[in-house]
Amino acid sequence: MKIIGLDIGGANTKITILEGEKYKIDTHYLPMWKMKDKLVEVLKNYDADYVALVMTAELSDCYKTKKEGVEDIIDKVTSVFDNVYIFDVNGKFLTPEEAKKRYLEVSASNWMATAEFIKRFVSNNCILVDMGSTTTDIIPIKEGRVLAKKTDLDRLMNNQLLYVGALRTPLHFLARKIIFRGKLTNVASEYFAITADINYLLGKVKNYSCETPDGGGKDREGCLIRLSRVVCGDIEMIKEEELYSLAKEFYKKLVEMVREEVKIIFESYGLEEVVTVGLGEEILKEALREYRIKSIKELYDESVSLAMPSFSVAKLLKLTLLS
Amino acid sequence: MKIIGLDIGGANTKITILEGEKYKIDTHYLPMWKMKDKLVEVLKNYDADYVALVMTAELSDCYKTKKEGVEDIIDKVTSVFDNVYIFDVNGKFLTPEEAKKRYLEVSASNWMATAEFIKRFVSNNCILVDMGSTTTDIIPIKEGRVLAKKTDLDRLMNNQLLYVGALRTPLHFLARKIIFRGKLTNVASEYFAITADINYLLGKVKNYSCETPDGGGKDREGCLIRLSRVVCGDIEMIKEEELYSLAKEFYKKLVEMVREEVKIIFESYGLEEVVTVGLGEEILKEALREYRIKSIKELYDESVSLAMPSFSVAKLLKLTLLS
Repeated sequence: MKIIGLDIGGANTKITILEGEKYKIDTHYLPMWKMKDKLVEVLKNYDADYVALVMTAELSDCYKTKKEGVEDIIDKVTSVFDNVYIFDVNGKFLTPEEAKKRYLEVSASNWMATAEFIKRFVSNNCILVDMGSTTTDIIPIKEGRVLAKKTDLDRLMNNQLLYVGALRTPLHFLARKIIFRGKLTNVASEYFAITADINYLLGKVKNYSCETPDGGGKDREGCLIRLSRVVCGDIEMIKEEELYSLAKEFYKKLVEMVREEVKIIFESYGLEEVVTVGLGEEILKEALREYRIKSIKELYDESVSLAMPSFSVAKLLKLTLLS
Repeated sequence: MKIIGLDIGGANTKITILEGEKYKIDTHYLPMWKMKDKLVEVLKNYDADYVALVMTAELSDCYKTKKEGVEDIIDKVTSVFDNVYIFDVNGKFLTPEEAKKRYLEVSASNWMATAEFIKRFVSNNCILVDMGSTTTDIIPIKEGRVLAKKTDLDRLMNNQLLYVGALRTPLHFLARKIIFRGKLTNVASEYFAITADINYLLGKVKNYSCETPDGGGKDREGCLIRLSRVVCGDIEMIKEEELYSLAKEFYKKLVEMVREEVKIIFESYGLEEVVTVGLGEEILKEALREYRIKSIKELYDESVSLAMPSFSVAKLLKLTLLS
């Protein structure tokens, strides 16, 4: 039995091919706002007995409404595959017809796929912390129940969604004032530099896998140039070691924000184990070292950690089919 | 004797025509990065005996370096006018030849023109606070001396430049968490909404005179839509009165940031009078009500407050010529 797990996002489509205990994970850069019709072409390279689907691409601004997006994505996937099942925010699989009717429930259910997987296969009493490029999900799982709010608004209101990620967060969101040359210095609020710049410089992420704010280089020099602008300087006015210190100061703020947010969930739910997932696992490891950590990267491998919803939804469909 | 004061910025060129005690102020929307060659065309509509010039357009990314920008702008202005004098960050006028040699000293000297004017004509013991669209200058003037640092980097390090303005500041720079429906709620760090949105909704600025983050409307509804996104909502999920409360919460943060920053300068220099200037004068009035305020809008008029450097540099050149 060959199952494919599909996670169709606004910029990337992730595909897990699951056969027995073996798995293979592919990532396709497929920015939906400019090339949504390429999706069918990409999918045609795959075959499967069953397909499990989660999506966030319906939120992309190539679709006027979530309804239109959900319908179009389901139509594209079912034009290539039979036996497609769509995972919803309640943790259930729906047929394409049901899913189109309940489009709000299948929209942005990717984090729920991860949470359900963790609950069933990793830990049923934990805080799931998933740091992606842009945001960090903080999801309490207690006594085998995923206790997360369902909408992003409710998750922002309840410390379950922190709008901070390993790559795309503007540095000025981390701190309005930062220590520079020993002085608390005001930060420029322009879109000059992002967490990718500091995390790449400090070796916390391997690849600068997003666009640069200035369209400049993704190498060390490009990062230093952008970082210098955050205090209205340039690389002639500011020495390299000063820029590294500045990067470390911003990194401290990033780590503190995650730590504080997880602490609130810890205090509310009394959960002592943390399961870390995503592009930012190295950052989470440092932020959350006071907890008992289970790392998906270590338990499985990095490819799983980076493509968790597609892997999870394939595994969950298999479980459903076998039961 | 007819004097023209020119303030050539990246997006707007402001022109004060001064004849005796009479003045007239024009503003031209002239985004240099796409239409710098139109500058000469615009200037040709004016005539003058003397021209006083300040600029920031050399920082625009249509110029590779400040040197290139300063030279090009001076060449354009001198191709239209004789008797051009360029104001520098030390408070002196330079000839075009001198200015090109000392390009770093004439770059971004607009705030110094305002400060010198205030010192000579309004108050020689005060904190000058100028809130524009993007930033707020906080400049101590003590015993007739402008005690400001010269570079933006030094000004950020010394509480003299706060990167917060009446229009263009992303709301997520004002607060990472904000009260919403009675709960401290995480804020999205995307470029969803700016201070123009809240200041327009709350009547703190008359015009939404900058681009909208989403390319959407500059009307009340456009502002409400953008504001709702800051907590990952939309105008169907969130009531209008809730959005107004949210706008007020962000506004409070804006006011607090200005107040705290001015307080540091007040404590360092013991200056009790504040002179307010710029697009954000209404906001400054609320933020700084504990001080003795002199408002340029009230002492002169709104057009002067909005185009202070061009007005100042014209007045200062007149003073120099007469002395």
